[in-house]
Amino acid sequence: MKDESISPACGRPARSGGRAARHAMRAAPLTEAKRPIRAGMSGGTYRPLSQQDMERIYETALIALEQIGLADAPPSGVAVMTRAGAILGDDNRLRFPRALVEQMLGLANKAITLHARDPLHDLHLSGTKVHYGTAGAAVHMVDVLGRHYRESTLQDLHDAARIVQQLDNIHFLQRPMVARDVTDNREMDLNTIYACCAGTAKHVGVSFTEPDFTADALEMLHLMAGGEDQWRARPFVSNSNCFVVPPMKFATESCLVMENCIAGGMPVLLLSAGQAGATAPAPIAGAIVQAVAECLAGVVYVNAIKPGHTAIFGTWPFVSDLRTGAMSGGSGEQALLTAGCAQMHHFLGIPGGAAAGIADAKLPDMQAGWEQMCSNVMAGLSGLNMVYEAAGMHASLLGFCFESLILGDDLLGQAMRCVRGIEITDETLGIETMRDVCIGGPGHYLGTDQTLGLMETEYVYPVVADRTSPKEWVERDKPDLIQSAIARKESILGKPTAVPFPPETDAAIRARFNIHLGPVA
Amino acid sequence: MKDESISPACGRPARSGGRAARHAMRAAPLTEAKRPIRAGMSGGTYRPLSQQDMERIYETALIALEQIGLADAPPSGVAVMTRAGAILGDDNRLRFPRALVEQMLGLANKAITLHARDPLHDLHLSGTKVHYGTAGAAVHMVDVLGRHYRESTLQDLHDAARIVQQLDNIHFLQRPMVARDVTDNREMDLNTIYACCAGTAKHVGVSFTEPDFTADALEMLHLMAGGEDQWRARPFVSNSNCFVVPPMKFATESCLVMENCIAGGMPVLLLSAGQAGATAPAPIAGAIVQAVAECLAGVVYVNAIKPGHTAIFGTWPFVSDLRTGAMSGGSGEQALLTAGCAQMHHFLGIPGGAAAGIADAKLPDMQAGWEQMCSNVMAGLSGLNMVYEAAGMHASLLGFCFESLILGDDLLGQAMRCVRGIEITDETLGIETMRDVCIGGPGHYLGTDQTLGLMETEYVYPVVADRTSPKEWVERDKPDLIQSAIARKESILGKPTAVPFPPETDAAIRARFNIHLGPVA
Repeated sequence: MKDESISPACGRPARSGGRAARHAMRAAPLTEAKRPIRAGMSGGTYRPLSQQDMERIYETALIALEQIGLADAPPSGVAVMTRAGAILGDDNRLRFPRALVEQMLGLANKAITLHARDPLHDLHLSGTKVHYGTAGAAVHMVDVLGRHYRESTLQDLHDAARIVQQLDNIHFLQRPMVARDVTDNREMDLNTIYACCAGTAKHVGVSFTEPDFTADALEMLHLMAGGEDQWRARPFVSNSNCFVVPPMKFATESCLVMENCIAGGMPVLLLSAGQAGATAPAPIAGAIVQAVAECLAGVVYVNAIKPGHTAIFGTWPFVSDLRTGAMSGGSGEQALLTAGCAQMHHFLGIPGGAAAGIADAKLPDMQAGWEQMCSNVMAGLSGLNMVYEAAGMHASLLGFCFESLILGDDLLGQAMRCVRGIEITDETLGIETMRDVCIGGPGHYLGTDQTLGLMETEYVYPVVADRTSPKEWVERDKPDLIQSAIARKESILGKPTAVPFPPETDAAIRARFNIHLGPVA
Repeated sequence: MKDESISPACGRPARSGGRAARHAMRAAPLTEAKRPIRAGMSGGTYRPLSQQDMERIYETALIALEQIGLADAPPSGVAVMTRAGAILGDDNRLRFPRALVEQMLGLANKAITLHARDPLHDLHLSGTKVHYGTAGAAVHMVDVLGRHYRESTLQDLHDAARIVQQLDNIHFLQRPMVARDVTDNREMDLNTIYACCAGTAKHVGVSFTEPDFTADALEMLHLMAGGEDQWRARPFVSNSNCFVVPPMKFATESCLVMENCIAGGMPVLLLSAGQAGATAPAPIAGAIVQAVAECLAGVVYVNAIKPGHTAIFGTWPFVSDLRTGAMSGGSGEQALLTAGCAQMHHFLGIPGGAAAGIADAKLPDMQAGWEQMCSNVMAGLSGLNMVYEAAGMHASLLGFCFESLILGDDLLGQAMRCVRGIEITDETLGIETMRDVCIGGPGHYLGTDQTLGLMETEYVYPVVADRTSPKEWVERDKPDLIQSAIARKESILGKPTAVPFPPETDAAIRARFNIHLGPVA
């Protein structure tokens, strides 16, 4: 943010030149590099765990893998993992010697690219780079005005994709809800891919109900990509794979799905979704241990099949309200779990993801706002690479809400501004500007070149959220937040899909598969 | 959280004994020490500034004090500060040599107690201990159902105090709004003290319009305390003092108020409330520099008068929306400013406070929720000793809202849970419990002793916020968050004041002063 017009020698602003150019610059759209926030900014300033804490968690996870191990691996998985060095016990549990885990961590891909149909939206996962996006398997849509939960449909999914495409601070679309109007599971999985990819050119995540659905899915993706080679060069869809059933059991069918995805060149999200106090230990520390242990088993599995295959370390422990056993994704405990997991990813040096931004609130009310911000900003500050469920999620993942998704874009913009942090440079410390303002100057910073120069490159402004004074608010007829979100939703959905497939591609897909959506272009 | 019934030797739970005792323990109210959260938990895990960053900010602040200095000190202040070593320039600016600043920092009180009428609510400020409370000078009350801003009154202030008294996660009451129905400034200041202290026995903060109002105020406080000695032993009201008009000018009248408060044994909040981009530099770093410089001048001032007098380092930089120049307390930039200031307090080793929890939203809607959580949780994680404005504040401090205050209690409970963090011990890592559950056990953690033992001591449950499933939510007639907050408000305000003055004290105060509130007991 160096302001060339201030001469350090005399401390006085040189008014000639520069200003007109800056004004012209501000009138033009900001280049991606100059935007105050963007996908992949680095967090890591929030560290709930000490180095020793992380070592103890890792050690305990290794002990769990060595002594407890995981049950229920499919025969193919047992074969590949025992060949690599895992030990199948008499109790049919697969145990993992420490050396095997460390060897496989060494083989694992440490800097992942998640491709997008539009390369502008490629995500580069490493270190503490942060990306926010949707995820989940909600079965309801939230009808905000009707205060009602209805079943989610394929069209909803497509609309969610179209909205995500327009939201700057939602960096990827993992399928957030289930198309309940497509009753055949194979057709549901295939139509889910179509509905998502036809709506957004950002990276897409999906899951598969059965292992033998993946061949059709890959065929569809080859059509979308323009051929198998093009797909394999830039796979723009990943498989969100619940490969374990916590505690410490492989999910047999999902493991077979994973094996197929690896063969098909599809990135895999190794998802361990225990629930502290129910399917994971109640202490936050113990829930992290179990999630890390389970995902390390996944790292062994993936890298034993194909060293370096793109896999995201998906420690997604959730939280129970221990009074009822029900999930509480909006709690402070959830925010801590997620941030702690992010630190473990950095400790292991492996790109990872976890869940944040879940509201327990049924509607996009004040509770939803604080619940969504708490875990989202902590996930970002902790440097979580992939923040899943970051927008739109209500009732602890049971309901998805378009208005909340749109408001979530503003919420995540502020969270990402926090991730960007505080820049300390000679220019930002600004003793010269302070001197000029205070001694013989105007006594305020309103018109300084420094202030004007930072207006669009350092400050983040909301799109829908309201910052008017009470007086302006009255003059504008007291805009209602939800109504403003509805207006933006209708504006987006009222336009054609922004990123349609080429007509011949669409025709080829529709000729080969039973696409339930009408023409989308 | 050690669970005595698990024997580390055999790894099996010993079912005999213990359980009945634990159930009995849970049925009893939790002692203060066992509550999962309480005032003064330690933060500090979020550190937006590196050590070098903090050194550079401090160095720049010292340069600003040495080279720019502050204008407009009252003659009494000039006298005491020049006697201590400050230098009055020909331009009437008071400049502070580095050695003077460091000497006075050495004299400053590093571990403050802010007393409360009820000693249970005393606040102990040091290190990274976190306390949340109200503050501000709102001129409006938010009428939530009417979607309307009306003028705030003395009764509102008293009601706010009564509500704060009942909210576990609001640890102090600094006067959040102005009693606009008391038009005489002296009577307003005196009635403000009365209305606050008659409503809550937590620590109270107030301000004074003119220096010569403090004598009456101290007389009233002596009556409340039972004598001047009792007041001086446990001063339960502090003076929130805007002793500077940023940038870098003393507020002459407020400085005289401060001198009187120091003489009267009243703790002082040294409040520097610049607005980045208007009365403070636009870069976050520069705004922190200026706030630190101004508060360091305050430390010199206070300790030159009375070494070790209780003073809170009140770096309260706010943020402008640079498009309009209007304040935006709900922005990510605000959250960063506040957290950065907290780190500077730790760097200087001096107890401090700053503003967080401000909503730009006019109503307690989703925007308000995310705005209030963002800065509150970041302030807590950064270990800010006094988080002012933490609840109830809307329209960037122009409006105060009872319903939002009540919801803020739930919000701050979750934030404080995050401050508490993740405990790593043999018990929380829990390999034995994991083994018991997975190998020959039930395959889930729902009924384990570990889970039951943590239910009330590690997990925080909201009072008003709703965690029901969509099904239960329908069965309960879809409770509305705002209506639930109104119900709690009416329940609190429908009861007599919980902490009335003794009748003879109240009579003595009313005999001496014109108290505008009717009888409160």
